[in-house]
Amino acid sequence: MKAIADFCIIPIGVGTSLSPYVAECQKIFQKHQLNYSLHSYGTNVEGPWDEVFVALKECHERLHHMGAPRVSSSIRLGTRTDREQTLEEKIESVRQKQLG
Amino acid sequence: MKAIADFCIIPIGVGTSLSPYVAECQKIFQKHQLNYSLHSYGTNVEGPWDEVFVALKECHERLHHMGAPRVSSSIRLGTRTDREQTLEEKIESVRQKQLG
Amino acid sequence: MKAIADFCIIPIGVGTSLSPYVAECQKIFQKHQLNYSLHSYGTNVEGPWDEVFVALKECHERLHHMGAPRVSSSIRLGTRTDREQTLEEKIESVRQKQLG
Amino acid sequence: MKAIADFCIIPIGVGTSLSPYVAECQKIFQKHQLNYSLHSYGTNVEGPWDEVFVALKECHERLHHMGAPRVSSSIRLGTRTDREQTLEEKIESVRQKQLG
Repeated sequence: MKAIADFCIIPIGVGTSLSPYVAECQKIFQKHQLNYSLHSYGTNVEGPWDEVFVALKECHERLHHMGAPRVSSSIRLGTRTDREQTLEEKIESVRQKQLG
Repeated sequence: MKAIADFCIIPIGVGTSLSPYVAECQKIFQKHQLNYSLHSYGTNVEGPWDEVFVALKECHERLHHMGAPRVSSSIRLGTRTDREQTLEEKIESVRQKQLG
Repeated sequence: MKAIADFCIIPIGVGTSLSPYVAECQKIFQKHQLNYSLHSYGTNVEGPWDEVFVALKECHERLHHMGAPRVSSSIRLGTRTDREQTLEEKIESVRQKQLG
Repeated sequence: MKAIADFCIIPIGVGTSLSPYVAECQKIFQKHQLNYSLHSYGTNVEGPWDEVFVALKECHERLHHMGAPRVSSSIRLGTRTDREQTLEEKIESVRQKQLG
C-alpha cells in the first residue's frame, strides 16, 4: 500500500528556531529515498506505507537525540485503491481545474 | 518509544455517514489492546510506537476493504523522553490548572 | 453556519509544560459560552462559525500575552448542511455502530 | 496579527475527485489577495488573521454551494510575535540549514 503523507514536526522545549530540526528530517526522507517536497508548513512525503512510517519514526528519534524532550507532529495521510497518483499529479490535477 | 496519537480517519467516496467506519477502527484499537478514547472529532490512542502504527495501518486497510476508494487521515502524534504521561494524566494536568 | 472544531494549540518557546496554556484556552471557550470538551490531544468546540473563530483568535492572543513568542495550532473543522449534529450525537452515533 | 496557515479542505459526499473543489479554494485565496501556495496535501496561506479566516469561511460555504453536504478541513495555523516571517522565508530558513 502506497501512502502520501504530509508531516509537520514540532520539537517542544528547544526554543523558537525550529528550522534546524526540519532540515534534519529532510535528510532522513532523502536517506530513505522517498519522494518528498518541503513547503512552508510541513513536508509532503510519498512512498510505500512502511517506508514512510520508518522515516517518520526516525525523525522523532533524531529530534529527541538533538535535545528535544517533547516532539509533536501533525500529519495528514492518504491512501487510495482506485488509482495511483503521485505528489506531482495531485498538484497538476488542481492546476488544470483552475484553468478550466 | 511510547506514542500518544490522535486519529481522525475520513473515508472518501462512501457518502456522508462515516460513523460505521469510525466504529470499525475502535474495534481495531481494542483488538491491539491499546489504551484509546473516542471523542467527537477523532480518537486518542496510546501505546508503543510500533503497535500504534500497526493499528493505524489496519484501519486504512479495513476502510478500503469496506469499500472506501480513498482514505484520508489527520493525525497528531506526540513522543516525549522527559517523563511518562498517560492519556488520563494529560487531561488531569489541565484540569488542575483550571482550578488553580 | 455552525462549526464543529477540534483545537490543539501549542505554544513554542515556553518550555515543555503546556497545560497552563491549554487551561487558559478552556476558560476562553467557557467565556464565549461555546459547547466544548477537553480530550488528551485537543479540545472539541461547537458553536456558530464566527463565535468559534473569535475564541480561537483570543486563544492565540492570550498565549502570546502569557509569553509565548510562537503559537502553532492544529485544527480540524467540520461544517454540514444536511443536518444538525452536536458533539454528543457524533460520539453516540459511533457507539451505536460498535454495538451493532 | 498576521497568520500563516495551511489548509486541507475535504468535501464529503461528492465522490473521490476532489480537485475541482480545491481549485475553487485557490480562486478564493486569490480574490482575497492573500499570499498562497498550493502543495500536494493542502495550501499555504499567509495574511492578516481576519482576512485568512474570512477566506477559509468562504471556502467552506463555496464547497457547500457546489453540492458537498459535509466539509471537513485540517488546518495548521501559526502566529508569532518575535519577528515577521513570510512563506518564502520559512522555506529558505530550512534550506540554509540543510546546506550547513
